[in-house]
Amino acid sequence: MAEEAAVRAQAEVVRRLKQDKADSDEIAKEVAKLLEMKAQLGEDEGKHKFVLKTPKGTRDYGPKQMAIRERVFNAIISCFKRHGAEVIDTPVFELKETLTGKYGEDSKLIYDLKDQGGELLSLRYDLTVPFARYLAMNKITNIKRYHIAKVYRRDNPAMTRGRYREFYQCDFDIAGQFDPMIPDAECLKIVHEILSDLQLGDFVIKVNDRRILDGMFAVCGVPDSKFRTICSSVDKLDKVPWEEVRNEMVGEKGLSPEAADRIGEYVQLHGGLDLIEQLLQDPKLSQNKLAKEGLGDMKLLFEYLTLFGITGKISFDLSLARGLDYYTGVIFEAVLLHQENEHVEEPVSVGSVAGGGRYDGLVGMFDPKGRKVPCVGVSIGIERIFSILEQRLEASEEKIRTTETQVLVASAQKKLLEERLKLISELWDAGIKAEMLYKKNPKLLNQLQYCEDTGIPLVAIVGEQELKDGVVKLRIVATREEVNVRRESLVEEIRIRTSQC
Amino acid sequence: MAEEAAVRAQAEVVRRLKQDKADSDEIAKEVAKLLEMKAQLGEDEGKHKFVLKTPKGTRDYGPKQMAIRERVFNAIISCFKRHGAEVIDTPVFELKETLTGKYGEDSKLIYDLKDQGGELLSLRYDLTVPFARYLAMNKITNIKRYHIAKVYRRDNPAMTRGRYREFYQCDFDIAGQFDPMIPDAECLKIVHEILSDLQLGDFVIKVNDRRILDGMFAVCGVPDSKFRTICSSVDKLDKVPWEEVRNEMVGEKGLSPEAADRIGEYVQLHGGLDLIEQLLQDPKLSQNKLAKEGLGDMKLLFEYLTLFGITGKISFDLSLARGLDYYTGVIFEAVLLHQENEHVEEPVSVGSVAGGGRYDGLVGMFDPKGRKVPCVGVSIGIERIFSILEQRLEASEEKIRTTETQVLVASAQKKLLEERLKLISELWDAGIKAEMLYKKNPKLLNQLQYCEDTGIPLVAIVGEQELKDGVVKLRIVATREEVNVRRESLVEEIRIRTSQC
Repeated sequence: MAEEAAVRAQAEVVRRLKQDKADSDEIAKEVAKLLEMKAQLGEDEGKHKFVLKTPKGTRDYGPKQMAIRERVFNAIISCFKRHGAEVIDTPVFELKETLTGKYGEDSKLIYDLKDQGGELLSLRYDLTVPFARYLAMNKITNIKRYHIAKVYRRDNPAMTRGRYREFYQCDFDIAGQFDPMIPDAECLKIVHEILSDLQLGDFVIKVNDRRILDGMFAVCGVPDSKFRTICSSVDKLDKVPWEEVRNEMVGEKGLSPEAADRIGEYVQLHGGLDLIEQLLQDPKLSQNKLAKEGLGDMKLLFEYLTLFGITGKISFDLSLARGLDYYTGVIFEAVLLHQENEHVEEPVSVGSVAGGGRYDGLVGMFDPKGRKVPCVGVSIGIERIFSILEQRLEASEEKIRTTETQVLVASAQKKLLEERLKLISELWDAGIKAEMLYKKNPKLLNQLQYCEDTGIPLVAIVGEQELKDGVVKLRIVATREEVNVRRESLVEEIRIRTSQC
Repeated sequence: MAEEAAVRAQAEVVRRLKQDKADSDEIAKEVAKLLEMKAQLGEDEGKHKFVLKTPKGTRDYGPKQMAIRERVFNAIISCFKRHGAEVIDTPVFELKETLTGKYGEDSKLIYDLKDQGGELLSLRYDLTVPFARYLAMNKITNIKRYHIAKVYRRDNPAMTRGRYREFYQCDFDIAGQFDPMIPDAECLKIVHEILSDLQLGDFVIKVNDRRILDGMFAVCGVPDSKFRTICSSVDKLDKVPWEEVRNEMVGEKGLSPEAADRIGEYVQLHGGLDLIEQLLQDPKLSQNKLAKEGLGDMKLLFEYLTLFGITGKISFDLSLARGLDYYTGVIFEAVLLHQENEHVEEPVSVGSVAGGGRYDGLVGMFDPKGRKVPCVGVSIGIERIFSILEQRLEASEEKIRTTETQVLVASAQKKLLEERLKLISELWDAGIKAEMLYKKNPKLLNQLQYCEDTGIPLVAIVGEQELKDGVVKLRIVATREEVNVRRESLVEEIRIRTSQC
């Protein structure tokens, strides 16, 4: 189309040039226009050839990012294992109907696969629904498991703040019929352990209960039919001020101003055991059966958290209202209070890094006979943690190794490729992590430089004299010290020297 | 429809019962029919509500399968690290156009995402094309990396033989301009190390070269335009006999019978250095520039493999013709010769467990200026290895632990939940892997039984007397031995006892 237009414009110019003998200013103007159009066409063609990028909201992980990622995963996995969890994995996509009706308003963010014949599929939105499907399908009524995998949401990405369309979740869940609040308390202990271990700075874990929220809505005069939608308004309180949330409740959602104001008083409250006691005495709330149940369990939870010694970082917060449809009891969310960054003085909330809660009804939605399996779990949101650690690492100029190579097999003279191949093969077979340059005759200086660049601590140098003497020259990169080691002792020597590093 | 029919049938029965006073045999028969129809209706309704399954060609991994998977991954990752590889990760989907034109006839097996607005996306089909895209996008000309991730193919699944639509690939690739065949030889060494390490039984690594294949086609009289399609016929030789492949070439693909017969002679050949020497003397092949280049490099490769001491498992095989479009040089495929299974006497090929080759042109397809980055790599096909190990484990009745828990915190009397919570919290904080039952007052017998079932080696028992004495009773599950340990020494004692286990 644009090309056609350009051609037509060109013809028009030629016609005008011939017929009208217009003045040269006019011509110059037209030519400039044409050149501009042509330039645009050229650009467009280039763009259409192909775009060299990852899909919107996704990223590659290079070796440096992977090194950080592995550190974080190791901290999380060792915590999950410390608590006796097994591990499972499920497919990246589920039958579309498996995800239907589980996420409320967020369902529009689900990625669907194209219908290429066969089943209708969607990418998993979280790991909780696949877990519930797995339990129901295999009739499992009792398991403690973790699952670390990517999930997919067609949300507006904010990648600098670690919000992606493809992101990892690290989930730990306890399924089974148990005495109240013991597994729930363990989930909070796990969040506490992981956030402490990762040294991300100060944090607080906000706790609330779906039943307390619903009871609160009831005693404030919210009609039953509006519980869910008012709840998602409350959910915004960590991002927008109360006045805006109130306007949404009254203006958009048709709640009476009096009910909104009563909610406004409750959602300001946060505290510990004392607040729970106070609310248990609250003349209105204490009359509501659901709220009373929730408050009773919250009290028990705080008693267990006291035994764990972690109440200092826990805040019972009536404004916490997680959006997902499936929660039925305790809900919680961990928030970093400020980023450990020298350039930022005042504490800024960098948002949620973990969340979870109790969902006693979800498995029953999958069971043909509706048999329930009570569950409680936590999900660690890795991406924000990654971006914090990535930024911190960049700022610190700490050099991070991306390989574990112990030794570079090098040569000082030419024509020793075969000897290098023989030696490196011996080292690999003995379990030593070894590299060599893929050149027939590399310069010694280049080989040493490679070690400097990549952090390889040792160089095993083969030369003609060493070969005759049955030794290998072992160079310690950091000190430039060189020692001759008998070939049969080389493996042991490398082991000793790299375990010291 | 069926429901209506049932109602009508029921009415009919009632009518007959009243009017005809039919004999009781007749009634019994009709009632039986009705009950059967009702039962079927009930079943149908249940089925239509939802299907409780994973998508076709996919599976869940339960804790036992995950334990096997982790063993296999550990073997593979430690090999990749031993060879100095870095690790990267890429998104599970790519822009659709990134995958276009890379897989030849297999492109129809790509999973597309639904167009929900925005970019057109497809699930990755392998890890090689995303790797090439990553290199071009980041202008990387030199890297040795591994990547372990799931890929997706809308193929006909054969799950008992480990063929899935979602499956893991474990890829190791070396990118960069290097002296010939050194990285190629390392890839084969890696396959040899991994398959030996996993103890899957005897295997052979078939090797060929795209240039030798193309040269062979040329000297056999295959027209240039038919190279690709004749190549994919040859690719079937590991599954179907030569006669069938010949029929396809001549009948379906219009090759002359003489050309087919000449190919037939070559593709029977397999051997080692001697065969390479023989073909270098072959009057026809030695005249072809491509074939000569390929044979020269093959000779060099075998010299390096001799230095690595692995030629015993390598077979230069002229029938090997991997289907993917992007290979340009060496290609290879590792095949298990027979499954280690006592019930099967004769060796049966269980198919390819690893494959790879050189692809020097792929990165250039993504670079705006067509700059090439030579690459060679190997992909380990994990799913077949899993199914073999899974079957072997089931047959052996070996009990595999799915957690690493060192100690169960138990109590002998009632009302000790708080003491258990305090003790387990101390253990977790000291890095001990500990569990407890989520019950207020569990029976000691049930707690001991839990250890038997899950393989937990130690029980730390708190009782009133022990609390008074400042000790914990430590029970060794295997021997039933019990010792009192002072509380302050408990962590150390557990560490010592579980490192001995």
